[in-house]
Amino acid sequence: MAKNGFKVFDSDMHIMEPPDLWERYIDPAFRDQAPRGRTSENVRDLGTIFPKVPKDTRRTGGTPHRGRNYDKNQDIYRSHAERGWTGHVQLEAMDTEGIDTAVLFPTRGLGILTFPDQDPRFAAAMARAYNDWLHDFCAADPNRLLGAGMISVYNLEDALSETRRVAEDYGFRSVFLRSNIINGINWYDAHYEPLWNLLEELNLPVGFHVASASRSRQAAEHFEPNFGIRRVYSQPFEQMMGLGAFLCGGTLERHPKMRVAFLEANCSWLPWLLWRMDEGYEREGDVFMPDLKMAPSDYFKR
Amino acid sequence: MAKNGFKVFDSDMHIMEPPDLWERYIDPAFRDQAPRGRTSENVRDLGTIFPKVPKDTRRTGGTPHRGRNYDKNQDIYRSHAERGWTGHVQLEAMDTEGIDTAVLFPTRGLGILTFPDQDPRFAAAMARAYNDWLHDFCAADPNRLLGAGMISVYNLEDALSETRRVAEDYGFRSVFLRSNIINGINWYDAHYEPLWNLLEELNLPVGFHVASASRSRQAAEHFEPNFGIRRVYSQPFEQMMGLGAFLCGGTLERHPKMRVAFLEANCSWLPWLLWRMDEGYEREGDVFMPDLKMAPSDYFKR
Repeated sequence: MAKNGFKVFDSDMHIMEPPDLWERYIDPAFRDQAPRGRTSENVRDLGTIFPKVPKDTRRTGGTPHRGRNYDKNQDIYRSHAERGWTGHVQLEAMDTEGIDTAVLFPTRGLGILTFPDQDPRFAAAMARAYNDWLHDFCAADPNRLLGAGMISVYNLEDALSETRRVAEDYGFRSVFLRSNIINGINWYDAHYEPLWNLLEELNLPVGFHVASASRSRQAAEHFEPNFGIRRVYSQPFEQMMGLGAFLCGGTLERHPKMRVAFLEANCSWLPWLLWRMDEGYEREGDVFMPDLKMAPSDYFKR
Repeated sequence: MAKNGFKVFDSDMHIMEPPDLWERYIDPAFRDQAPRGRTSENVRDLGTIFPKVPKDTRRTGGTPHRGRNYDKNQDIYRSHAERGWTGHVQLEAMDTEGIDTAVLFPTRGLGILTFPDQDPRFAAAMARAYNDWLHDFCAADPNRLLGAGMISVYNLEDALSETRRVAEDYGFRSVFLRSNIINGINWYDAHYEPLWNLLEELNLPVGFHVASASRSRQAAEHFEPNFGIRRVYSQPFEQMMGLGAFLCGGTLERHPKMRVAFLEANCSWLPWLLWRMDEGYEREGDVFMPDLKMAPSDYFKR
């Protein structure tokens, strides 16, 4: 499918998890609390329900199941939904769009590791279940469907062991994290150094991927119940702050071989943000960015 | 001082309030709780202490009184500080910089109306005291020093009466607000309509001005104690969200004569942000931006 000799690569394609993924794949000890995918007359219903967790009363909005684009989307996706969003359906969609190879991110699963008070063992079990399912999903064509492994940082040991497992046992080419902080520990904290060391050792990129909602603090959440205005800001702002943690916080200085992607959040803000970081570095970098040996934007050029 | 026939106008110049401003100018009923300006060996110490409010334990950072730029700033500002940052000192600084006329914003006073549980009567008294002092300050040259009035929105009636007072009694050319929400009510809420109506009636612009810290929720506060990384984001993010409230929330649709400024937060992010808002409008504007008659960026061109 290469175009003029170039292969087309999608660094951020989403799969639609079956609603019973976690009930089927999770360690049976956690099955009763496993998230259930919500289904409704909306073929793109992406909701997720935790049977033992109260509904998030802070949110009254969410992606609308109405509006002028609703019917159009129902028509586009109805056949895919009826066929269960399988790996073969995914490959068909990639053919339609002219994509050779894609890194795959979750949809329902994007929000399940954002609870600030999550039990670390349950979180790790949800991540393992997702990765086991994703490995089966990618079997439809492992050369075109590349898994991005879900890892839980509620207990860093879980993140380390799961990163190694998906890379070595499943051949996944990356792992992913949400950039908004769920455990009070920012990404440049020494706490995470073992994870960045391991990613360098395994030569494995990490992709940061946010969603427009979160059970933990997230930029623009105060726009609720107006989910549409919240969505203008939530993903780009969290990714901009994640980039700052890695650049200004010295993570990329300490890990020159590390590769990090910040996904699905636009990028035309980047020239402004790098200038803004450089301005901060010039003003007070010796106090607040002590690990940096050069201006933040220079790491981006490296 | 006009340059090539043009006058030089600064839309966002800061004054440095004397530490005893509020003790001297506030309604005596509130004098015991009035904020005191902190002073120290740092001639630019901008701290403010509320004698009856505990120190903000969330913050361990703040503008550093150290680092490679500290001594340079001490030299630049020592003479101004020793002469009490008066109106005449301000005019001298404007002469040095070649500025004909400036709209004046506070420094110590920028943070005093950000407490989420503030007594509305005390808040209104602090605003009145600041405006009374500012009117005296501007008397050094009322044609070059233009006050931006401080208004308290803890009780909207206070904001309305003080807006009218500073415009009609003092000839102030604008009022200002912080864009980060301090009372849980977003700027596009119907609650604020009387204020926007009054600003239109008085033909008075409102300037939104943030600072790098706040006692209420603010973007990037989770970077504390690293105040330097927090500062990269805090002001621009709050102003970007304020702009979204006015554009996407329909305030500028409902108030075509209203003029709003978003200050001290850069602007090279604007093309991206307008595109991002337009994308949201295209996707779900009929659901979440129901008041808009055109895309958000079109209001900017109006």
